[in-house]
Amino acid sequence: MMKLTILGSCAASPSSIGFTSSQILQVNGASYLIDCGEGTQIQLRKNKIKFNTIEHIFISHLHGDHFFGLPGLISSLNLLGRKKPLNIYGPIGLKKAITLLLKIGQSWTNFNLIFIELDNLGPCVLLNNENIVVSTIPLKHRIYTNGFLFTKTTKNQKLIVKKVQEYNIDKTQFSGIKLGKDGVTDNGQIINNSELVETKIPEIKYAYCSDTLFCKDFIKQIEGCDLLYHESTFLENHKELAKKTFHSTALQAATIAKNANVKKLLLGHFSSRYNNLNLFLDEAKTVFENCELAIDNKSFII
Amino acid sequence: MMKLTILGSCAASPSSIGFTSSQILQVNGASYLIDCGEGTQIQLRKNKIKFNTIEHIFISHLHGDHFFGLPGLISSLNLLGRKKPLNIYGPIGLKKAITLLLKIGQSWTNFNLIFIELDNLGPCVLLNNENIVVSTIPLKHRIYTNGFLFTKTTKNQKLIVKKVQEYNIDKTQFSGIKLGKDGVTDNGQIINNSELVETKIPEIKYAYCSDTLFCKDFIKQIEGCDLLYHESTFLENHKELAKKTFHSTALQAATIAKNANVKKLLLGHFSSRYNNLNLFLDEAKTVFENCELAIDNKSFII
Repeated sequence: MMKLTILGSCAASPSSIGFTSSQILQVNGASYLIDCGEGTQIQLRKNKIKFNTIEHIFISHLHGDHFFGLPGLISSLNLLGRKKPLNIYGPIGLKKAITLLLKIGQSWTNFNLIFIELDNLGPCVLLNNENIVVSTIPLKHRIYTNGFLFTKTTKNQKLIVKKVQEYNIDKTQFSGIKLGKDGVTDNGQIINNSELVETKIPEIKYAYCSDTLFCKDFIKQIEGCDLLYHESTFLENHKELAKKTFHSTALQAATIAKNANVKKLLLGHFSSRYNNLNLFLDEAKTVFENCELAIDNKSFII
Repeated sequence: MMKLTILGSCAASPSSIGFTSSQILQVNGASYLIDCGEGTQIQLRKNKIKFNTIEHIFISHLHGDHFFGLPGLISSLNLLGRKKPLNIYGPIGLKKAITLLLKIGQSWTNFNLIFIELDNLGPCVLLNNENIVVSTIPLKHRIYTNGFLFTKTTKNQKLIVKKVQEYNIDKTQFSGIKLGKDGVTDNGQIINNSELVETKIPEIKYAYCSDTLFCKDFIKQIEGCDLLYHESTFLENHKELAKKTFHSTALQAATIAKNANVKKLLLGHFSSRYNNLNLFLDEAKTVFENCELAIDNKSFII
């Protein structure tokens, strides 16, 4: 199970609808922050997310509505007494900008600020820990942009008690078998791991794709995702504007969802020109039924 | 008349009490933004302040809670189609940081961004227009910091109708006389301006002093102000901490107000360690009676 909370999903500027792009994904007590628009720390507080559970921050691209909340969040983490390192993944240039902002205020952090700067053009794995694998999804925007694919792995599998008893396998091996090791009987016979554990629980996948032009290049990578967040800055009546500004419409987001055969679609990154967000939903549902709006402070269990 | 609206008055980080430092002073339809903590643009919207009335922004110092809202505000002004220049007054370093933040996103403004970078150690006049004179108030903080003194000038004075009729002064001279010129009668007699206009309405003065150590150096400069905003990050029970971090207590702010003989004191820049802000008021009132708390979204007519 993963829990996704929308902290902001307005395009460009905070508006009466909500804050700019930011989301938090919670998995086994750890939090992964995805983009960090202005006011993200305010939204984290509102949603009672413990700041110190954040160990990894992923910045899609360097337009202000996706990272202008980062310097303030870093300052607050420092004030809260953070000691453990913070990993920030984002395009080249982010480190210089953030460190300059802190430097001119003679403000330094008492924890290690680790920037992992990206310029890969193809997908690459950023993180692979006991909870999750995070990979980039290369997107097409006005500037270098990555989406992110979060895959919850279920390495810790369930023993088939009857089988381990049958083979008389010693308890000391159980934790290893749960992690994927083969078993060994008293007389040295090796029992294949797949005989001793239940079928692996299907992996849970969440794909974050923002900001991007309508682009089918990454469909294979997000195939069958449990949840896809795809930007829908515009409606079809502004299709040309979407193309010009390297954004997508709700219909295009739904087309990606359908072609990638995802289970559910979340629409977000709404332009402030639209007062009625239900228009996005209506448009997308003509192509892909199971979709919802990414509204500030709303949570989704994946 | 000037109208001051508090957009944020929390120290260090936004909290349940409110946003970080920012205020807006409105005079004759023009708006002067004082400090710009994260989320200032959100607060401007909430208070229905028209973004385009802002022509001058004054940044006291380069701690994040006083300027991390600036890049987002500038981006939003650009998206709103601003064409007229924006003047930003603040310490050296501000220009480089803000321009770098925009540059890495390949985001430029369609209006002139004019930075007036400060390193003066004594008071200096930053602005002198038909509405207002703005001067720096040198403060004592961990890094280079200025307060700001706003003086509303009343150059446009009221004619004494009886007098101009008595001297038979032509209508064409009225606007000049209101601006301080002498009058001339039909037969060339010069009439002193002071005979033709009502006694000048007293100038209105607002002093913004944040952040600062308890310091009496600027008392003479703010003498007799109509309103003084003085930071009171701490209470007297944290007097030593205030000194160590170059901040003031509520009692110290009140002492400055009393010694400078100001008409009214506004307390702000509260540390999040205090849940009950009335303690600040109680402490200050033991020394200076006419004081109020600077609460987010509250306005004061000066």
